[in-house]
Amino acid sequence: MLPIAVDAMGGDNAPAAIVAGARRAASEMGIPVLLVGRPEDLVDTGGLEVIEASEVIAMDAEPGSSVRRMRDSSLVRAATAVRDGRASAMVSAGNTGATMASALLRMGRIRGINRPAIAIPVPVPQSTPTTLLDAGANAECRPEWLVEFAQMGCVYARDRFRIERPKVGLLSIGEEAGKGNKFVKECFELLDENTWAKSSGAEWIGNVEGRDVMTDEVDVVVTDGFTGNVTLKTLEGAMSALLSRLLTAIDTDDETRRAGEMLSAPLDSMLAELHPDSTGGALLLGVKGVCVISHGSSSADAMANAIRIAAEMVDVGMVDHLSAAVRQDR
Amino acid sequence: MLPIAVDAMGGDNAPAAIVAGARRAASEMGIPVLLVGRPEDLVDTGGLEVIEASEVIAMDAEPGSSVRRMRDSSLVRAATAVRDGRASAMVSAGNTGATMASALLRMGRIRGINRPAIAIPVPVPQSTPTTLLDAGANAECRPEWLVEFAQMGCVYARDRFRIERPKVGLLSIGEEAGKGNKFVKECFELLDENTWAKSSGAEWIGNVEGRDVMTDEVDVVVTDGFTGNVTLKTLEGAMSALLSRLLTAIDTDDETRRAGEMLSAPLDSMLAELHPDSTGGALLLGVKGVCVISHGSSSADAMANAIRIAAEMVDVGMVDHLSAAVRQDR
Repeated sequence: MLPIAVDAMGGDNAPAAIVAGARRAASEMGIPVLLVGRPEDLVDTGGLEVIEASEVIAMDAEPGSSVRRMRDSSLVRAATAVRDGRASAMVSAGNTGATMASALLRMGRIRGINRPAIAIPVPVPQSTPTTLLDAGANAECRPEWLVEFAQMGCVYARDRFRIERPKVGLLSIGEEAGKGNKFVKECFELLDENTWAKSSGAEWIGNVEGRDVMTDEVDVVVTDGFTGNVTLKTLEGAMSALLSRLLTAIDTDDETRRAGEMLSAPLDSMLAELHPDSTGGALLLGVKGVCVISHGSSSADAMANAIRIAAEMVDVGMVDHLSAAVRQDR
Repeated sequence: MLPIAVDAMGGDNAPAAIVAGARRAASEMGIPVLLVGRPEDLVDTGGLEVIEASEVIAMDAEPGSSVRRMRDSSLVRAATAVRDGRASAMVSAGNTGATMASALLRMGRIRGINRPAIAIPVPVPQSTPTTLLDAGANAECRPEWLVEFAQMGCVYARDRFRIERPKVGLLSIGEEAGKGNKFVKECFELLDENTWAKSSGAEWIGNVEGRDVMTDEVDVVVTDGFTGNVTLKTLEGAMSALLSRLLTAIDTDDETRRAGEMLSAPLDSMLAELHPDSTGGALLLGVKGVCVISHGSSSADAMANAIRIAAEMVDVGMVDHLSAAVRQDR
């Protein structure tokens, strides 16, 4: 396998946590990794190969113009490495918009895809995650793009979570066909025409609601990037509020603190299951290459996981599967 | 105070749980209550006054046509009682759409309000709930309606939660002014013109994200009814998934079950804090009367709470405050 190009400069904890995660992926998982960044900032690389890039796109920089202007940035260089066949995938915990823009600019779109989408695995307690897309790449969508999102979501659910026949639902505000706003009703009509589901090997289950996302009712939830991003952040907020409230409950007095210690093993496994670090970040689906977008706050662990997911998606041939899925339908 | 008209026939547990809740509100809270429904179905009413209504609108009936057709339904009769000055408010756990349609048809809109909105108090652990509106009355909105939602949300946050100067935010996918889809950007521009905030005594804080809803960062979150409903149901789904996952963690073995017992008091108070039954349902804001929409699955407790909220909102003069809030701004 060609190495995974890791943007060593992106993320709140860059470069130290990024380099540490990359080293772990290389040494513990045996994944070939190369770092992209400013050599003078990269210490303790453990001998990993480095592609030099003199610039860094800031976390809050305007994506489009930064990417066009900063061609020697770690992000653009990482995407270029994939395009040039020097790397098999890119991984970044940096500026999300700039990561998308770099991937789109350098790798280009898969033929048949109008717009790449961000796919996020939402944890489902004690079960397989639900794939939510678009989780924020396109604030404004056309109904026909959602059919492509559905096709891509199926490939991802199959390649990543081994779900042979994913249940695909459209996020709306009621299960009946007529529910939703004008945009969602148009999407429903397009998705309800059965050709994409047949060629994708999907089970189209119609509308689903916000309360279904964290359950086994659905495997792939398609929505526009605005609604998807609101949903994702609402879930993150709810989990963080509940978990911190739980810690407060445990911290009531000596007896409850002792109970908390007795519960530490199952609570730890619950936290591990629900923590975004374990799912290994988001994938930008629809570009000609594997592109993993990790949380800005990624730790070394989260980076190692993100690199592992990237390697798995390269290994399984996800980009070819995406390409075949949209081609079949034309 | 005029009595609160309670739709005795609406809800999954009607009429038994509804009647029980109404009795409790009357006997334990001293709130005047009248029941609306089929007298032959209403037993154990404890001497509460009954307004006869021969029809029942089913939970899954089409709202608009049912309300127009079934004038002798418990829902329409309850709304009529408010219009005619026989009751001060209506409360129903029945068909949400039909409850809205009855209230709108019989009570009418407050002058200056284009569209009533559903306001939901979202629990914030160990703090004051955040008011989310519109949580589903209008799947399709015009930007100018959101200014009215903001004004109404302020009145509600002040009347219900005693927040003198509510922080009002627009739900979007980034905090910066330019973030969001076209609709949200238009809403932002309108809301950013400061006259409504000044006349409402609000602090306009700009865009907020899904992760802010369950925190103290914001008191009133305005959004269109599609996004609001998705957000609400996503929160409900996340809470339910996490709480059931927590129970599984506690149920691991004898030791963890014992720890669960030691934690029962603080966990119970955590559940009470987060359970929708405690917040007492949604309010339809913008009609000429107090209209509380309770969960379809409402228990007697939930009904008693919903009736208490209705009485409080009558008592504080919420409808006059709503009316003044939108009039000031013209």
